[in-house]
Amino acid sequence: MKTKTTLSDLGEFGLIEHLTKNIVIKHPETIKGVGDDAAVLEYKNKQIVVTTDLLVEGIHFDLVYTPLKHLGYKAVVVNLSDVYAMNAEPKQITVSIAVSGKMTLEMIEELYSGIHLACEKYNIDMIGGDTTSSVTGLLISITAIGEADKKDIVYRNGAKENDLICVSGDLGAAYMGLLLLEREKQVFNTDPKMQPDFKTHEYILERQLKPEARKDIIKLLRDMKIKPTSMIDISDGLSSELIHICRSSKVGCKIYGERIPIDVETGNMADELNLNATTCALNGGEDYELLFTVPVEYHDMVRGNLNFMVIGHITNEKDGMLLIGSGGHVAELKAQGWNAFLRKE
Amino acid sequence: MKTKTTLSDLGEFGLIEHLTKNIVIKHPETIKGVGDDAAVLEYKNKQIVVTTDLLVEGIHFDLVYTPLKHLGYKAVVVNLSDVYAMNAEPKQITVSIAVSGKMTLEMIEELYSGIHLACEKYNIDMIGGDTTSSVTGLLISITAIGEADKKDIVYRNGAKENDLICVSGDLGAAYMGLLLLEREKQVFNTDPKMQPDFKTHEYILERQLKPEARKDIIKLLRDMKIKPTSMIDISDGLSSELIHICRSSKVGCKIYGERIPIDVETGNMADELNLNATTCALNGGEDYELLFTVPVEYHDMVRGNLNFMVIGHITNEKDGMLLIGSGGHVAELKAQGWNAFLRKE
Repeated sequence: MKTKTTLSDLGEFGLIEHLTKNIVIKHPETIKGVGDDAAVLEYKNKQIVVTTDLLVEGIHFDLVYTPLKHLGYKAVVVNLSDVYAMNAEPKQITVSIAVSGKMTLEMIEELYSGIHLACEKYNIDMIGGDTTSSVTGLLISITAIGEADKKDIVYRNGAKENDLICVSGDLGAAYMGLLLLEREKQVFNTDPKMQPDFKTHEYILERQLKPEARKDIIKLLRDMKIKPTSMIDISDGLSSELIHICRSSKVGCKIYGERIPIDVETGNMADELNLNATTCALNGGEDYELLFTVPVEYHDMVRGNLNFMVIGHITNEKDGMLLIGSGGHVAELKAQGWNAFLRKE
Repeated sequence: MKTKTTLSDLGEFGLIEHLTKNIVIKHPETIKGVGDDAAVLEYKNKQIVVTTDLLVEGIHFDLVYTPLKHLGYKAVVVNLSDVYAMNAEPKQITVSIAVSGKMTLEMIEELYSGIHLACEKYNIDMIGGDTTSSVTGLLISITAIGEADKKDIVYRNGAKENDLICVSGDLGAAYMGLLLLEREKQVFNTDPKMQPDFKTHEYILERQLKPEARKDIIKLLRDMKIKPTSMIDISDGLSSELIHICRSSKVGCKIYGERIPIDVETGNMADELNLNATTCALNGGEDYELLFTVPVEYHDMVRGNLNFMVIGHITNEKDGMLLIGSGGHVAELKAQGWNAFLRKE
């Protein structure tokens, strides 16, 4: 039988000590990590990139079907994804958690094992945080810090007319995974003897529960000597992110529905749920793929690479933001996105 | 009548836009603030200091008696206090909030007006954040970033035998303010017609509801050309913080109860509640004063300055951590502190 240790036995200092005692600093830029009023970093002649995300139980995750280790892993990855989307390298994170009284030390250890796993995989120093209790659910707040040479940083506002619009990987899978988990939860709530049926759905479940940040794509672009003119990570859905790029860059866009990359498992699940897979890819969110624009002269290089898909091109601002559907049907892009204020209502 | 705007009308992007549209960047080091995947900072030949804090409704604050503007102000100040405690200058913050459905836009604006006020007063750039909904209460997560020359940073671990132990300001007032607010809340709950009696308690209420970070003390020490050997801010109570310094520095300490600075209002309130004021100053927390050690040769300089009080000195580790009471009674220091896991149980 597993041990269960209550948090009030341990106290806040005991918990912090317990969770941070095995941290080994990985980067020479991390002068001082956990254990003082603040962490100390040193970057000479580099620019520093900072991003932060808040994950709330019942809004961003459901502990009924989210393993705590996966949750910790994902909480780190979604922040690193923002740093990569600046074409920068993440190096440090701070992790703050609020935990309810019903959580045990062993549960928090599970959560941190996922956090540490992500730190190992992406070569990140955990340099601080805050640990407190919550009146109700679990809450995780992570801030990621990274670095890049000034010349390498890619903003959202650099897209130019005629640039190619590219996405990495495939889209819509994480959302399909979420819908599947929600469906099986409903089934289980109705009849607890029913076992969830996850056969042939491994990919979409993994995309939802254990996403990865596209560090590999950043490296690949660097190796290909391609610096995107604009870049963003797809956390709220392709439509919403592309609108961010167009508005920041003061340009329009034209993308082709049939060129949006969708995995076969995503397509099957959409069929099963009577949904349009392209709509799910446009609005689903949580894919953590990269959306970026490159000058048209790179056309042959990006088209020839299986890691990206060219889904359209940048147009003049006055031409609007357009989606060309099958049969040439033209629709305006809308930012339905993933609205945390609407989702559970 | 005041307007009330629901957050689901506005959506997450609308809310972020609304809350960040008037931000003017103050520091040349802030290359890019809100509006991309991450903020971008540039520090040449400086060390960077990072700290983070999480404030949870029902644990760290009670909206029954905490005005939202004060709460926003305090949430920033407690983070800046950690940066000053490194002898560094805070320059940027990120602010993430989770808000319950019952909060309106106008309430969040109140909260942000306090955040902006603290940013103005302490000369801070707000560079990013995350805004989401919460199933229950309000939650605020702030990360502060600052800078210092490498030679100026003060850690917890530099205290040496014979160093003088100093504190700024006075202690215990914030805790007395909290106890007063809790008492008046109980009275109000029992008889809603009773009006709270806050006369002659302005100081302890302000210390609880609108604390300041001791930027002035950092500047004063610099002007006096005194670099402390160790420093920490008093967020969890004097005992707990002094134990942090002693353990990190591998030293002991001897402090004198009658030298602990206590304001007359704090003393009166303690009497009224039948509490020992010195115990409250030792364990109360949330004072955000600075606790630091300086070499004994500065004795005349620090004793002659009304902004500090010398409360004792550093001893050999084997001599333990001691509190000398009135009449010479010797007690061991204990870190009762402010335990977020115990407080509401």
